[in-house]
Amino acid sequence: MREVAVLGVAMTKFGVSEKTNLEMFAEAGLEAMEKSNIEPKDIQALFFGNCLGGFEEGQLHMAPFAHSELGLPTSAPAVRFECACATATVAIRHAALLVASGVYDLVLAGGTERATIMGTPLATRTFAMASQAQHEYGAGITFPGVFAMAAHMYSAKYSVPLPELKKHLAEIAVKNHRHGAMNPKAHFQKEIDVDTVLNSMLVADPLQLFDCCPFSDGAAAVVIAEAGKAKDLVDKPIYIAGMGQAACGPLYLQQDLTRVKAREEAFRQASSQAGLGPEDIDVVELHDCFTIAEVLAIESFGLYDFGKGFDAATKGETTFGGKVVVNPSGGLKAKGHPIGATGAAQVTEIVEQLRGECGERQVQGAKVGLVDTLGGDLGTVCNIILRS
Amino acid sequence: MREVAVLGVAMTKFGVSEKTNLEMFAEAGLEAMEKSNIEPKDIQALFFGNCLGGFEEGQLHMAPFAHSELGLPTSAPAVRFECACATATVAIRHAALLVASGVYDLVLAGGTERATIMGTPLATRTFAMASQAQHEYGAGITFPGVFAMAAHMYSAKYSVPLPELKKHLAEIAVKNHRHGAMNPKAHFQKEIDVDTVLNSMLVADPLQLFDCCPFSDGAAAVVIAEAGKAKDLVDKPIYIAGMGQAACGPLYLQQDLTRVKAREEAFRQASSQAGLGPEDIDVVELHDCFTIAEVLAIESFGLYDFGKGFDAATKGETTFGGKVVVNPSGGLKAKGHPIGATGAAQVTEIVEQLRGECGERQVQGAKVGLVDTLGGDLGTVCNIILRS
Repeated sequence: MREVAVLGVAMTKFGVSEKTNLEMFAEAGLEAMEKSNIEPKDIQALFFGNCLGGFEEGQLHMAPFAHSELGLPTSAPAVRFECACATATVAIRHAALLVASGVYDLVLAGGTERATIMGTPLATRTFAMASQAQHEYGAGITFPGVFAMAAHMYSAKYSVPLPELKKHLAEIAVKNHRHGAMNPKAHFQKEIDVDTVLNSMLVADPLQLFDCCPFSDGAAAVVIAEAGKAKDLVDKPIYIAGMGQAACGPLYLQQDLTRVKAREEAFRQASSQAGLGPEDIDVVELHDCFTIAEVLAIESFGLYDFGKGFDAATKGETTFGGKVVVNPSGGLKAKGHPIGATGAAQVTEIVEQLRGECGERQVQGAKVGLVDTLGGDLGTVCNIILRS
Repeated sequence: MREVAVLGVAMTKFGVSEKTNLEMFAEAGLEAMEKSNIEPKDIQALFFGNCLGGFEEGQLHMAPFAHSELGLPTSAPAVRFECACATATVAIRHAALLVASGVYDLVLAGGTERATIMGTPLATRTFAMASQAQHEYGAGITFPGVFAMAAHMYSAKYSVPLPELKKHLAEIAVKNHRHGAMNPKAHFQKEIDVDTVLNSMLVADPLQLFDCCPFSDGAAAVVIAEAGKAKDLVDKPIYIAGMGQAACGPLYLQQDLTRVKAREEAFRQASSQAGLGPEDIDVVELHDCFTIAEVLAIESFGLYDFGKGFDAATKGETTFGGKVVVNPSGGLKAKGHPIGATGAAQVTEIVEQLRGECGERQVQGAKVGLVDTLGGDLGTVCNIILRS
């Protein structure tokens, strides 16, 4: 297997956009290629992510149309991936695998999503299609409900009283909004305080509105190349040190919502491949679709023991100057969550962090970064460890 | 790159089913693994195809649920591919690429679709989402319209009067129904004659109802393995000799509907990789979504010169005893077209043909077979050449 690097990365401003999925992806894709000092004709394959185009724009089979918007050659196949919120990370992982193996030298990968056009009721309905619809939809469980259950289980299992847990979860939202306020691409760039969270609308007990990430529009794209080629094209290639992906079935097969089996396995694969452990990680972009999800994630990686991660944000350990900076971009919570694009935006942030390009939200001296994306109600997890 | 083989293959009976997408895929997947003499725990990745689950069953993110229905291990990632009608072929191609490159040794790939539950209006509406919706849907063009235009252009370009062309197209439907009548898994197992076609309802001039493939339910799955391992597991591994995939944008970028640019490029890739030309091919499963599509395909492969393939069925050259047997399974026309499963069913037929397992529809002495699947209105084509 050859060493693989990331060249140019780019994302649109996340938020509410009037642009189509294809227009947003073209914007990100062209910028990523320009930063890579390559032309569209150099790209050998497009690995493209989108989840809900059928409902957003009556558009499926979007990959070859993204391909033509970018002016890629006919010989370069265009492939659409869908693994719920982990979609773009999975597309990037497969791009990296096929570059590592010598099938391709230069691949464009990423994703796009235009969730806000659906409005909240249809967005909620269609997002819930990423759970096992036959068994779970009839029970009325949407994603806020799943993560609310996880919070209740966490509270009971580790004897953290719910009111106390809620305050610690609110601190996670406060931290990620503080980070997002430093990110000009973030959906929300406004600081909040604990009271903002606790006094916001109750969505699914114990999760308030500000415990939940938004529906967002946006796209992100990255260029993946063989490491030798990368050095000729850009000043600071960032290397893919390890990757992992694992699958876990529907909720009824998951014994314990506080332990994300697919993530523990995905991180094990990535960590083992990289020869790097949690102690080596300087910066993490992880899947904080709800504040409790950030707690579950940092514990899965071994950054914290199980049952011990809930107050990491409160103690200031997961922000600048702390033990490890978690979601410097603002995370899904503040940067936003255009689901088919999210993984590529996470890779974009980690790559820019490892290059020292993040301005006031720069994690000083960051050398190793982790991307973590979760799909559905814990059914898919994809992890990528990057290094400078 | 390592040599890659297909082990067990399986498909459900195509037609109208009461089963869910996941139930159908589990049926095919379990049978494919059983025929491969392997256990679910041996599978290292699932490459899964489905197009319209969101509209059929309110189900997206289906790959990890297919994974759990089959009892695959958590360490095996489950990835959903979508490239319109070429979905399963693309999933299989990527499985083969990652086995060839040594990332995996044993992968299950295939697809499932439950189109009939939508009913014809919603099925027509959602199938059309595989065209470039922003530019084409507003023009009222659905797929019968696209291929009807291709037939008109073919008639004009090659000076084949339309009434004459219609009769030759009808002969393609007659042939594929005759083939399908010998296939116990086919959606339609009934012979028809030219008058059946010409007297059927007009769908989009010059295409009558019997020029069009049906909406079908079904699933198909194949096990892909490294060739050395394959020989230990099954009596007759079938080898992947070459593969190709190419992308072409929306209709407005295609200069000539009678020339499928993505197919010419995909076949060039596959043929060059295999070191085999059209003259080497004994049997073809190709994308006859409409009768005219079969003409365009055999010309793309160089089996016929451009403008010369229209009367191949009439002359008996594309059936048993002819020059090359095209769609011995009955093709999309008679075997049926559950879109996310179609490519895997085509591979299933070619593998069984090359193994000599096809009973009364066996192509005698078949040694080299071609799978051809087209996605959308010529946006994606994936080709796989197999050999015994």
